Amino acid sequence: MTTIENPVRNGVDTATLFATLDAVKANNDIAKFQFRATNRWVSGTHNRSTFHGFHGAKQEMTHRQPFTFDADHPAVLVGTDNGPTPVEFVLHALAACLTAGLANIAAARGVNLTEVESTVEGDIDLLGILGLSDQVRNGYQQIKVSFKLRGDDPDKLRQVVEQSRRRSAVYDIVTNGVPVAIEVDAG
Amino acid sequence: MTTIENPVRNGVDTATLFATLDAVKANNDIAKFQFRATNRWVSGTHNRSTFHGFHGAKQEMTHRQPFTFDADHPAVLVGTDNGPTPVEFVLHALAACLTAGLANIAAARGVNLTEVESTVEGDIDLLGILGLSDQVRNGYQQIKVSFKLRGDDPDKLRQVVEQSRRRSAVYDIVTNGVPVAIEVDAG
Repeated sequence: MTTIENPVRNGVDTATLFATLDAVKANNDIAKFQFRATNRWVSGTHNRSTFHGFHGAKQEMTHRQPFTFDADHPAVLVGTDNGPTPVEFVLHALAACLTAGLANIAAARGVNLTEVESTVEGDIDLLGILGLSDQVRNGYQQIKVSFKLRGDDPDKLRQVVEQSRRRSAVYDIVTNGVPVAIEVDAG
Repeated sequence: MTTIENPVRNGVDTATLFATLDAVKANNDIAKFQFRATNRWVSGTHNRSTFHGFHGAKQEMTHRQPFTFDADHPAVLVGTDNGPTPVEFVLHALAACLTAGLANIAAARGVNLTEVESTVEGDIDLLGILGLSDQVRNGYQQIKVSFKLRGDDPDKLRQVVEQSRRRSAVYDIVTNGVPVAIEVDAG
């Protein structure tokens, strides 16, 4: 029996994925990226971010279209509920990064996925951001991600999730923190 | 001259804001929230999150509509560019949280805003997530937020940004990290 390699698995073009890895190995500078968002205040807790340009592979690039997202607080938090809260976008970023990673890793390992769903829950005590307790942090106290995967052998699926965790940019950001500098032009 | 207190400033209903603070002071359990996202894999690096329900103020609540967002990788990162990357959503969350906070804080202090814009830049070296270097972290190496504010006295505006930083949930998450637990149902 002849086995034909499938270059596209889980919707991932593995031939291009491996070619990209080879290109980065040959020239590490290709891997230096800068992502950007611009945000504009609308009113109250409602504001809007746009993503378009980024730097990568030694050049300025753009998404094929600008992407725009609103954020707001719900009424119970004195907002107008024109979008999810900022902290909810962190949960999306985490789920999205782990899920993209596991699709890639499964494809690279020849593991087929048929279904991936996750629920992300973040517990937060608003006594922190409201300035009502010095004992309570501002951000989430803990986050739980619950994955449901269907596809090939369950053990292989679990290993793919673990490898995605080990290589996830957002998991690293959210668990380990990143230095943030803030500059202000006030006039 | 009689000064009339303006209960709405910067689009923030300050009367409701202070009433909410009083309610939380009287019953701290109101402040315990859980936010959630559900994510579903579409294909390759493309996936989609939905936000609808959350817990807060001692009850299950919902946004007034479900919000749905796609994430993907651009073509240069072997994706199909159907949405921003997961790491870009982190930048949006950070800008949105700081901006919502400063609108609230300015309103509470009687400071008028006319314009708030920010650009957030995150530097990342993909040698980390590609598994090509043990010396490079997976996530952003640094993030820079550049605010442009217009409104009342510039010194007051700068103080408002500083207080927003000190009380921002996402700034705390991104700079200090949060424990993340991952559960897997693989079948």
